[in-house]
Amino acid sequence: MSGPGTLYGIGVGPGDPELMTLKAARLLGHAGVVAYFHKRGHQGHARTIIGAHLTRAREELPLEYPLTTEVPSQDESYAQALTSFYDASATAIAARLAKGDDVALVCEGDPFFYGSFMHIYHRLSGQHAIEVVPGITGMQACWTQAGTPITYSDDVLQVLPGTLSEEALVTRMRVADALVIMKLGRNFAKVRRALTTVGLADRAIYVERGSMAGEIVLKLSDKPDDSAPYFSMLLVPGRGRCL
Amino acid sequence: MSGPGTLYGIGVGPGDPELMTLKAARLLGHAGVVAYFHKRGHQGHARTIIGAHLTRAREELPLEYPLTTEVPSQDESYAQALTSFYDASATAIAARLAKGDDVALVCEGDPFFYGSFMHIYHRLSGQHAIEVVPGITGMQACWTQAGTPITYSDDVLQVLPGTLSEEALVTRMRVADALVIMKLGRNFAKVRRALTTVGLADRAIYVERGSMAGEIVLKLSDKPDDSAPYFSMLLVPGRGRCL
Repeated sequence: MSGPGTLYGIGVGPGDPELMTLKAARLLGHAGVVAYFHKRGHQGHARTIIGAHLTRAREELPLEYPLTTEVPSQDESYAQALTSFYDASATAIAARLAKGDDVALVCEGDPFFYGSFMHIYHRLSGQHAIEVVPGITGMQACWTQAGTPITYSDDVLQVLPGTLSEEALVTRMRVADALVIMKLGRNFAKVRRALTTVGLADRAIYVERGSMAGEIVLKLSDKPDDSAPYFSMLLVPGRGRCL
Repeated sequence: MSGPGTLYGIGVGPGDPELMTLKAARLLGHAGVVAYFHKRGHQGHARTIIGAHLTRAREELPLEYPLTTEVPSQDESYAQALTSFYDASATAIAARLAKGDDVALVCEGDPFFYGSFMHIYHRLSGQHAIEVVPGITGMQACWTQAGTPITYSDDVLQVLPGTLSEEALVTRMRVADALVIMKLGRNFAKVRRALTTVGLADRAIYVERGSMAGEIVLKLSDKPDDSAPYFSMLLVPGRGRCL
């Protein structure tokens, strides 16, 4: 018995398996158990990304989200279902750690940047050894694939969720030099209106599935419709100073 | 003759050489020429990071910044000197590309996120093949090492340069849920006052040399002085929702 295991919260990057760090790949190679979040009927993005790196069989611990249809996230039943789910997930992971296994919980992007990982982290830190490995975020894949530097020199960057009200979006857009807008989906038309109001629509770039198969990069002004799937973002690059 | 070479703008991450991506390591292994920015008398952070990965000799192309003492960046002579420097650097890189060499220009963090790389990128894109590889940013190293998730769910993240006026800092801090504040240096006392004004000083975390030797992580309230070297940041993590 070598004592309890370590939980590794591993950022596996935005999609391209080569955009994982050397550290992530090394730890993934050693972990006895690989855990990942997923929706029913889907393998999950993080598990898909690491597929090519899992060169030997090991125990897998899939953590299936309880909600597959969209329940409004303001709904109390949504919060309760997720709380129970994270409780159960943390318990399942803790059981492996207690057995002495190291567990790699793989996360798309960066574990500490808008992820589900923190809900496990808050439940287990202090009681178990935890190490976090940062990963390339989806927004970085988007600005890289769009071929556009996002920030220069003294630019202010804002990362905004499209879920904000139109007024809240406009208020924040007015005090930014560069923008990343996520969670578009049904918010797309509202976000476009806000960008138009502040005079930034002409500079905005739409990126869908950055660094993945089926990637799309368009000027917002060239996008005729207002549909936007899960893996999509709008970017407004800063303009910095020409040197 | 195999045709002109490709310029690779390679993000090598924040400091720990293992936080480079697999793609960065692979491309670095193949490039005929390795280029990097540095100040006089210093090797440069990016060159230091890749040291362990340069397993065979190859041509190095150091690009030395013309200013080693701090000239106010608003100064016209500063802008002129840098413009000439980037012109000359782009010309030197283009000469290697024309010879058929691939050139890896290594950049700390992510090439498109507050970097010098874009000044080369803007000069050479359209005329040469360029591929950019994103890298883990310094701010990601800082929040990882501080053990603090930075953003949850619908949080608004702002990345602010400490160079802004106190009033501009306060205006932006008021409409953010999470903050990353860079370029502290002589701006530290001003940034601390702004955080105090908006009631965020108690939540702020100071990180120096995240993921490097000599790392320091402190609550801002535990930091007695107002000194802050180049590799330092303040973080105000979002609070999201407890699930």
